[in-house]
Amino acid sequence: MFKSSLLSLSLCFLVLAYGCLAQAEQQQCQGQHQQQQQQRRVRGQSECRVQSLSALEPARRIESEAGVTEFWDESNEQFQCAGRGIQGTMIPGCPETFQSFQQSQEGGSTRFNDHHQKIQSYRQGDIIALPAGVAHWCYNDGETPLVAVSVLDTSNYANQLDQNPRKFYLAGNPRQQQQQQQESGSSYHHQQTQQQRSGNNIFNGFDVNILAEAFGVSTETARKLQSENDNRGNIVHVKNGLQVIRPPRLEEEERQQEVRGNGLEETICTTRLRDNIADPSRADMYNPKGGRITSLNSQKLPILSYLQLSAERGVLYRNAIMAPHWNLNAHSVIYVTRGNGRIQVVGNYKQAVFDGELHQGQLLIVPQNFAVVKQAGNDGFEWVAFKTNDNAMSSPLAGRFSVIRGMPEEVLVNAYRISRADARNLKYNREEMVVFGPQSGSQERASA
Amino acid sequence: MFKSSLLSLSLCFLVLAYGCLAQAEQQQCQGQHQQQQQQRRVRGQSECRVQSLSALEPARRIESEAGVTEFWDESNEQFQCAGRGIQGTMIPGCPETFQSFQQSQEGGSTRFNDHHQKIQSYRQGDIIALPAGVAHWCYNDGETPLVAVSVLDTSNYANQLDQNPRKFYLAGNPRQQQQQQQESGSSYHHQQTQQQRSGNNIFNGFDVNILAEAFGVSTETARKLQSENDNRGNIVHVKNGLQVIRPPRLEEEERQQEVRGNGLEETICTTRLRDNIADPSRADMYNPKGGRITSLNSQKLPILSYLQLSAERGVLYRNAIMAPHWNLNAHSVIYVTRGNGRIQVVGNYKQAVFDGELHQGQLLIVPQNFAVVKQAGNDGFEWVAFKTNDNAMSSPLAGRFSVIRGMPEEVLVNAYRISRADARNLKYNREEMVVFGPQSGSQERASA
Amino acid sequence: MFKSSLLSLSLCFLVLAYGCLAQAEQQQCQGQHQQQQQQRRVRGQSECRVQSLSALEPARRIESEAGVTEFWDESNEQFQCAGRGIQGTMIPGCPETFQSFQQSQEGGSTRFNDHHQKIQSYRQGDIIALPAGVAHWCYNDGETPLVAVSVLDTSNYANQLDQNPRKFYLAGNPRQQQQQQQESGSSYHHQQTQQQRSGNNIFNGFDVNILAEAFGVSTETARKLQSENDNRGNIVHVKNGLQVIRPPRLEEEERQQEVRGNGLEETICTTRLRDNIADPSRADMYNPKGGRITSLNSQKLPILSYLQLSAERGVLYRNAIMAPHWNLNAHSVIYVTRGNGRIQVVGNYKQAVFDGELHQGQLLIVPQNFAVVKQAGNDGFEWVAFKTNDNAMSSPLAGRFSVIRGMPEEVLVNAYRISRADARNLKYNREEMVVFGPQSGSQERASA
Repeated sequence: MFKSSLLSLSLCFLVLAYGCLAQAEQQQCQGQHQQQQQQRRVRGQSECRVQSLSALEPARRIESEAGVTEFWDESNEQFQCAGRGIQGTMIPGCPETFQSFQQSQEGGSTRFNDHHQKIQSYRQGDIIALPAGVAHWCYNDGETPLVAVSVLDTSNYANQLDQNPRKFYLAGNPRQQQQQQQESGSSYHHQQTQQQRSGNNIFNGFDVNILAEAFGVSTETARKLQSENDNRGNIVHVKNGLQVIRPPRLEEEERQQEVRGNGLEETICTTRLRDNIADPSRADMYNPKGGRITSLNSQKLPILSYLQLSAERGVLYRNAIMAPHWNLNAHSVIYVTRGNGRIQVVGNYKQAVFDGELHQGQLLIVPQNFAVVKQAGNDGFEWVAFKTNDNAMSSPLAGRFSVIRGMPEEVLVNAYRISRADARNLKYNREEMVVFGPQSGSQERASA
Repeated sequence: MFKSSLLSLSLCFLVLAYGCLAQAEQQQCQGQHQQQQQQRRVRGQSECRVQSLSALEPARRIESEAGVTEFWDESNEQFQCAGRGIQGTMIPGCPETFQSFQQSQEGGSTRFNDHHQKIQSYRQGDIIALPAGVAHWCYNDGETPLVAVSVLDTSNYANQLDQNPRKFYLAGNPRQQQQQQQESGSSYHHQQTQQQRSGNNIFNGFDVNILAEAFGVSTETARKLQSENDNRGNIVHVKNGLQVIRPPRLEEEERQQEVRGNGLEETICTTRLRDNIADPSRADMYNPKGGRITSLNSQKLPILSYLQLSAERGVLYRNAIMAPHWNLNAHSVIYVTRGNGRIQVVGNYKQAVFDGELHQGQLLIVPQNFAVVKQAGNDGFEWVAFKTNDNAMSSPLAGRFSVIRGMPEEVLVNAYRISRADARNLKYNREEMVVFGPQSGSQERASA
Repeated sequence: MFKSSLLSLSLCFLVLAYGCLAQAEQQQCQGQHQQQQQQRRVRGQSECRVQSLSALEPARRIESEAGVTEFWDESNEQFQCAGRGIQGTMIPGCPETFQSFQQSQEGGSTRFNDHHQKIQSYRQGDIIALPAGVAHWCYNDGETPLVAVSVLDTSNYANQLDQNPRKFYLAGNPRQQQQQQQESGSSYHHQQTQQQRSGNNIFNGFDVNILAEAFGVSTETARKLQSENDNRGNIVHVKNGLQVIRPPRLEEEERQQEVRGNGLEETICTTRLRDNIADPSRADMYNPKGGRITSLNSQKLPILSYLQLSAERGVLYRNAIMAPHWNLNAHSVIYVTRGNGRIQVVGNYKQAVFDGELHQGQLLIVPQNFAVVKQAGNDGFEWVAFKTNDNAMSSPLAGRFSVIRGMPEEVLVNAYRISRADARNLKYNREEMVVFGPQSGSQERASA
């Protein structure tokens, strides 16, 4: 699952997205040698230590020919988000439906050129859903860098191995690249974990003769699959741009394909894997004084029911508040895309488990059932949140949809030992839903 | 999930029921300062030690203003069960459908008074199903104490955190209360686990100014939400009784709402969350000489398919036997509501893992696939069992539905090296289904 | 889940198949005192150590009256596979639909003889699906030994206990038998784990008086259920053959019952539990030069959706290759039924995690997302693979369905730094699907 937000001119190397999860990764596919990656476990089998949370920033950089991978420990960079690109997903059993024909130079006959599986375009604000175990590649055909934030949920039922995030590359030589990088300064611990996590591409372990026979090619070509001497990293430059077969962009953008709500096994070949959550006109909650919330769940993008993940895009205007609330059935991984804000996360302890500023490029995890309140700073606050349920639900504590409003006044009077007037204020003073404007009146209202 | 069995005059404090499970809790909401609570893990990720089981009794008492919480270690009390009350569940996204209007004293105009979400009545023998993460409160409007046994299943897929049961209170100050209690005698170990488990209410961790702004109230009112100086515990008295909006009880009782069998996300607002299993006329198995079994599964109460839990009510008359059987797909948490009986639980060891008397107020866990037999004592034996599958199935070893009866005689002859006559006796001597009368004949019958 | 492949004349003892999994077991039900059993955990909660895999062979033998159980550590035997038998499954709540009547010798009146639940025949190449917790027995009514390979998946959601495989016998005295065996040479470690795993039959732990009353039989007969002095082991001889009620075999074989695709709780009594994957005419992929692949998933045998398991039967002719591929959503447990072959399994490390010969009777586990290639030896290579998903999907790396073919040529050119001609060779030289003939041409083709 990615949020792509910047443009670039490179080809993201082919990554076999593993059925693993709770790994948040931010990729910046671009020519400018910048890419970020971050890893963090959300839910494990061991005991959750949620006494204190912290905002996460990228820590370690690994340079590729055409991008950078950062790990979320130390550095602190600002990103500019805008962009578009194309992305290919190779789903087993799906036909190569994109075909091209070439006019031969000698005469009027058409000659077969290439065919491959469907390619989809993406643009700023898109969410791309990738089923576990499916191979994919992406290409930045825009004019500016592209930032992609990807979340891999190792706790998902689709992962039958352990909780370690594993990446299986189909090309390149990522381990060699990482070792070079690690020698130039990273700690020993990082080397260890990184070496366990990834390595050479998947062809590297096979015998070159078997590969040659399996593909029906020479051992020389088979050896190229193993990419032994490839030091370009997992993001590479494409000279003169990538020529692939695809329909004109505009058409592709406008067509809103009808998708039936069934799983991977039935209509995966034609299933929509992408939807946009940045477009303001798609907001689910909108308060002209406060901001907007757009969510993307399996009702809107049915493939998410197979992934058990959903996403939320939030925009708070200057000093606006998002109602304090808890997530009933999911963890939430919040990545700040613009601005800054004050966040408080509380559990069943007296102290908040997180109370601080979050700014652009930082990431915060809010565990299931913990309550969170967000207040935008002077420049506003924008984020994308990934949630570990395909139909994540939250329960607001204040506002029109709140639990407080759902309770009888007398219950509030007795539970909090307050007057009936105070109980009424608690229930009805905030008529807004979940996005609150910055200037709160304390006016009392008597009707809904 | 609760079984409410006694009446009282108090308001159970607001508890945000966590998506955690395998925690059995018995609450006595009443004015007489008695409430029991019990915690026990059923299934964990670590190895199950099921060489020996033991009957569980409450151990530690924590007093509230209007109730008591007991932990199941040492004390041994008898409960009397009868009662009724009301209960409110605040489900996010559901409207406040209970509205009241007040005749103003000055003239004939009606003035808006209050509105809140649906409230349901309960009475003795009711099972109440609460989806994970949903806030709720309860009130005892009867004339006698009320006993509620609640089971929280931390191994349920709905819980994405660790196996620790966590409670998030919306009001009160349970930690302070518990600490006071712990100083007066409990062991250090209990203090530790209890402090991890619960604490202040969820508003306590938030900044009071953000709370005030979020609710649009004064900081003074916001501070009341944090309940800092509230020493009443989690069960409090309501002077003059609780005035809430609700339809007349009789009507509510008789209406049997039709519910479609879909999950939380679709018609949760109108879903039935409650059903009665004590009414003898609802028995699923009835033997006038032996007793009756009533089960409540997701076929009868569809919300249970979302909770992956079901319940069984059993009544055995004096010396009657419930057929030895194993649960195919669930653990079973047995709580004795009346009488006493001899229980044997066996696994694949020579010795029984439990062989002893169970009496009123005790609790026993029977793991999946372990076989159990129950024989009532001289006063009969009654229980409620909670099962960790929404459609728990058991396989009897004896009686008309047994595996022995499902096998060919010749298989029995060869497996047990017995005569054909003995094989026939094993298969057909008990014509009863799963509840057997106390006096067993050894008559042989030749037909089904 | 078993694959039965040899015939015999014995009665397999009654085993209550536990809801546990990832345990591979091979049973040889026969009169010749040979039976194999193997146990191996596939997925646990602890970290997966997949740096190196090894082929597994049976290690320890436990003799029964009419069979042998082998554990997969040391010995190395060859099996001959051919056979048929009958099998009974006692499903709770299902009626005894097989009835017989006997002509009484005195006159023309018919006398009731016996009735029991449905019995099914099996023959070589059958897969039998047993829902967790359901009791069953089997009988070899053929003329040669019968080999059954059974897989119990302890990581399946149906298992709510720990990851230990547990067997609950309904008859016999397996522990005594095993202890005898262990004294004659096995290591201490095996004794320990074996004693934890199994023991006496399930009636052994019950009080004999309660058993007698529950069944309505004498304590003498009840004691027979406990099988205290039974040293025959879990496979016993049936003198003169087993007489059970069943329809003529031919009829049974030909009837292809229509099954609706719902789970255990609804039509389990009439659900088909068996299907054949050895019949060459049922192959899903067939290459006359290479071999064939037959898969059995929940689309074909709906009960598998309840078990979350599926199976694959593979036959490779001399020197043929099965395309390198990875399993997207499952582990694969490969058991070699005939011949030998070279197998390579690779992950994201430079070295293969397995690179070696596999021969008849060996077993290899390929973890999810790891890639595997198989090449038959001079005698061909045949296997059955059990997969931990009811609809296991694999993604080939080479051939007509491969990810390489799904990618645009330009992506290959840039990713692997190869010429356009080489990219075209990689994509189109192998026109075959997943089973490749031994002689690979390097001919280039220009069209699909």
